[in-house]
Amino acid sequence: MKYPRIPVARSIVALCEAKNIQHVVISPGSRNAPLTNGFALNPNISTYSVVDERCAGFVALGMAQQLGKPVAVVCTSGSALLNYYPAISEAFYSDIPLVVISADRPVERIDIGDGQTIRQKNVFENHILYSANLHSELVLENEAVDKKLQQKQFESQKHNEREINLALNKAIEGKGPVHINVPFYEPLYDLVEDVEVIPIQILPEVVERTYSENQLQAYADLWNKAKRKMVIVGVAQPNAVEQQFLDRLAEDESVIVFTETTSNVHHPKFFTRIDTVIGPIEKDENKEEMFEALQPDILLTFGGMIVSKKIKAFLRSYQPKHHWHIDTKKAYNTFFCLNKHFETSVNSFFTHFFPLTKEVESTYAQFWQEVRSRRQVRHDEYMDRIPYSDLKAMQAVVPRMPEGHILHLANSSTIRYAQLFKWKESLSIYCNRGTSGIDGSISTSVGAAMISNEPVLMITGDLSFFYDSNALWNNYIPKNYRIIILNNQGGGIFRILPGDKNFEIFDTYFETVHELNAKPVCDLHGFEYASASSSQEIEMRLNGFFDASEKPKVLEIFTPRKVNDEVLLEYFSFMKD
Amino acid sequence: MKYPRIPVARSIVALCEAKNIQHVVISPGSRNAPLTNGFALNPNISTYSVVDERCAGFVALGMAQQLGKPVAVVCTSGSALLNYYPAISEAFYSDIPLVVISADRPVERIDIGDGQTIRQKNVFENHILYSANLHSELVLENEAVDKKLQQKQFESQKHNEREINLALNKAIEGKGPVHINVPFYEPLYDLVEDVEVIPIQILPEVVERTYSENQLQAYADLWNKAKRKMVIVGVAQPNAVEQQFLDRLAEDESVIVFTETTSNVHHPKFFTRIDTVIGPIEKDENKEEMFEALQPDILLTFGGMIVSKKIKAFLRSYQPKHHWHIDTKKAYNTFFCLNKHFETSVNSFFTHFFPLTKEVESTYAQFWQEVRSRRQVRHDEYMDRIPYSDLKAMQAVVPRMPEGHILHLANSSTIRYAQLFKWKESLSIYCNRGTSGIDGSISTSVGAAMISNEPVLMITGDLSFFYDSNALWNNYIPKNYRIIILNNQGGGIFRILPGDKNFEIFDTYFETVHELNAKPVCDLHGFEYASASSSQEIEMRLNGFFDASEKPKVLEIFTPRKVNDEVLLEYFSFMKD
Repeated sequence: MKYPRIPVARSIVALCEAKNIQHVVISPGSRNAPLTNGFALNPNISTYSVVDERCAGFVALGMAQQLGKPVAVVCTSGSALLNYYPAISEAFYSDIPLVVISADRPVERIDIGDGQTIRQKNVFENHILYSANLHSELVLENEAVDKKLQQKQFESQKHNEREINLALNKAIEGKGPVHINVPFYEPLYDLVEDVEVIPIQILPEVVERTYSENQLQAYADLWNKAKRKMVIVGVAQPNAVEQQFLDRLAEDESVIVFTETTSNVHHPKFFTRIDTVIGPIEKDENKEEMFEALQPDILLTFGGMIVSKKIKAFLRSYQPKHHWHIDTKKAYNTFFCLNKHFETSVNSFFTHFFPLTKEVESTYAQFWQEVRSRRQVRHDEYMDRIPYSDLKAMQAVVPRMPEGHILHLANSSTIRYAQLFKWKESLSIYCNRGTSGIDGSISTSVGAAMISNEPVLMITGDLSFFYDSNALWNNYIPKNYRIIILNNQGGGIFRILPGDKNFEIFDTYFETVHELNAKPVCDLHGFEYASASSSQEIEMRLNGFFDASEKPKVLEIFTPRKVNDEVLLEYFSFMKD
Repeated sequence: MKYPRIPVARSIVALCEAKNIQHVVISPGSRNAPLTNGFALNPNISTYSVVDERCAGFVALGMAQQLGKPVAVVCTSGSALLNYYPAISEAFYSDIPLVVISADRPVERIDIGDGQTIRQKNVFENHILYSANLHSELVLENEAVDKKLQQKQFESQKHNEREINLALNKAIEGKGPVHINVPFYEPLYDLVEDVEVIPIQILPEVVERTYSENQLQAYADLWNKAKRKMVIVGVAQPNAVEQQFLDRLAEDESVIVFTETTSNVHHPKFFTRIDTVIGPIEKDENKEEMFEALQPDILLTFGGMIVSKKIKAFLRSYQPKHHWHIDTKKAYNTFFCLNKHFETSVNSFFTHFFPLTKEVESTYAQFWQEVRSRRQVRHDEYMDRIPYSDLKAMQAVVPRMPEGHILHLANSSTIRYAQLFKWKESLSIYCNRGTSGIDGSISTSVGAAMISNEPVLMITGDLSFFYDSNALWNNYIPKNYRIIILNNQGGGIFRILPGDKNFEIFDTYFETVHELNAKPVCDLHGFEYASASSSQEIEMRLNGFFDASEKPKVLEIFTPRKVNDEVLLEYFSFMKD
């Protein structure tokens, strides 16, 4: 078997393989040739070529999210590396293990006027779990070298091996992005036969904290006294929490469970649509009374980011006495009242916590279940009477989603609309909520599609789609990949936000109105294209849309730009009655 | 007149205006509404909406490069900001004043789980001249507030005004990128009437260093003794150096002047095509003897980055005794033998230096002028005999460039091909050589076109074009803007670099072969499109290409993927005879 001649490249490939990294997304370049060759020649690692590094970063993120283990991206030196930063920040806040490996020039070639050379060392410092700055290894032409030089080379190599181990371990242990920067001397393309390198192996440290009865009793006592307990589930992977624990929460009279589309947990009694509960109260005459009735004694949260701004605003005003968060890694003080971070998995927590708890008599769940039922009726009534709009288009799409799909939602209006509907429970639903950016939604879903057995549907707004249209410049997109674009000719979300919408600069600088359509992008990248401009057309176009096809497909749904904000704002007023 | 209600937004706008920033590129968002409103409402500032921040950064860079003064970009909070980083690094290394203004959430809302929130403070630390991290200013609902609170607000405001001044001054003084991060409390959209803010003004410090006879005499003595003096001009703005000084260098028998397309200096005796001199020597039997004859005693450089890798490799091996660099800001030790940095303008240096110098008898210039003449003959012979290829296509384009155009060249093969030809002297030629990235070439040229009275032509390879195709998503592109794409179906440059090209992974991971064409991108963004696949077709298509038109235009020139590398490599061998 052939290997790159430069030892550090062999060490990186060998350690990635040893740590079970099986997928590497490579962007073209010359300086990274030793890495490209090393990864592409390894039969146990799948490699993919993606030219635009911004997309490549998100593709790898989408893969790592599905796999629940690290995926690597590899690029050349210079500004190429900086294009990974949006994906790195998303990985940082969404706890996704992303391994960034950048080729670099040797340190003495930095800031002397050489091309494609920037200050790569620690360049992502604000949003990275570990930065391994490797030493360059000069491969000598004359093998018979000085003893001291040999020792120096040996020490560099061992330093590098340790740093590579630590970086990769950190990605696994800390579930986040790490950066390995590798300076290379030329020649870059040389290969050698059968000189497999066996670098030192440092195993990742798996910390599994469990809480004893002793440690939990005080919290259980509080729990057992509280008549109003609210559970909110943020972004979570499907099957992250055992159903028995979810069932137990759902059946407790003193507990209400708020979930979002991205929570990926299910029970008929869960409040799947937070905003349909909170939104109408904001419009209610008895707003204060209602919010006081909803205010919990104990707030228990798990999962990642919470989409609903309304629940954040509510709990920041109507503070629970206790806020506990369960997560192995971190706890945000989202509601300014965090008292306890249980640093363990949700399943481990409930395993030890539930035996200490008992049923509490309460009308809390029942009261809000009734509110929920009324809202459901009003929701259906409202949907029947509104004109064709984003909301109406979403209504047409929701029931037609096939079972078992992976659904990716773009920021920001798409995910917000999606929260208002009840989706099939067999769906796995994702959205880049770490930074809530529009910069890599499509690429992330493409990455998911490249790695998953289940078909992927991306639902996006027009701005997110065109922003990341290079996502479709990718030779590995499976034929069953689908995109639905809700094209309202601009950033419709801005019309919904508070602010003076008749203002003359609004259209240009906030909504950024445009007349683009996605057909040319589909022509460019070999996607099948169809469009729809009414509920009937959507229904027609979706008929067969998910069937097997020769090419991946886009359905572009045009909605009228100027009715969406009124339809959405009116929604919450209507719901309150 | 109306102003944003938040005082710090008014301060930023007022100080930008005071420091002569007349152009601001805005990307959509909500958090940046106070800035968007402030800039868009100011009648003395032109604002532009560009959705993709990666493009917006380069658009502003292209404008600032033409204007020679700062242009600002404004974005919302979160990962949006990170998309500016490629343009920031280019500005950093190309000495272009780029003012990055990002909206942020108040500090207590960072890392608590709010959306579109990252660690923006000092996020570009590796490549920024100044980071102003402003304090947030709470606009109180109740005007009758506590004295202490009033004092705190006052101090925050004054801190902010000072920081804004210092950042903007640094962009002007240091000719580079700066970052102003502005946290805003809601409400964001509110406007007020007639409350113009008058912030403190700190003027930029203009340091003009001049060298006295006393300080220069020792260098003049060396100069007057040296029989072989080489001048290399890196990237420079047109008219940066007075012609009288250039003439004096050109006429000196002991001086040869190497320039590049991006040097924008002209004299019939200049060696405009460095690689046509150095390249053939590399292939020559008498290589060592020839290089020794070329080795200078003194190397004098000015301007920015040097494109030619060959001249760098040559001078790193055949070291001059002295390397002096003239630049007000910085001097790179590009050839590992820098002895002196003259920290002044080129014109000031020569004004004081030339009176101390005298003619030195030498055959240096004459000898190499003769080599140059022979090379010119061989170049023409070679061009006549080669098959249709990138080089041949470039030959067809060069003479058809209209006078007076601004020409932007993409990285990396385009700029390298361009170095082999003699371009019209009335052209102003630019290329992003700070980081030599492919990530923003098109956007940079669009920025130039938006601001310039002269028409702009962009010549690019296919990868650079598709990478930055969002550059065309811009409502301000003038009708006379033109793009010529040399489409060789992949990264042709990689075929030219050393390395085993028959290797099975080469096509996918280095050359990244594709079958894309630019027509759909033109359809999407309303460009006229034409293509050519032979020298005759190129000639035909260029006939009228630069004439006035209703839309901007793209000419896509397809060249055969597999002959380009051989044609180019053979070029240097042929030239040596």
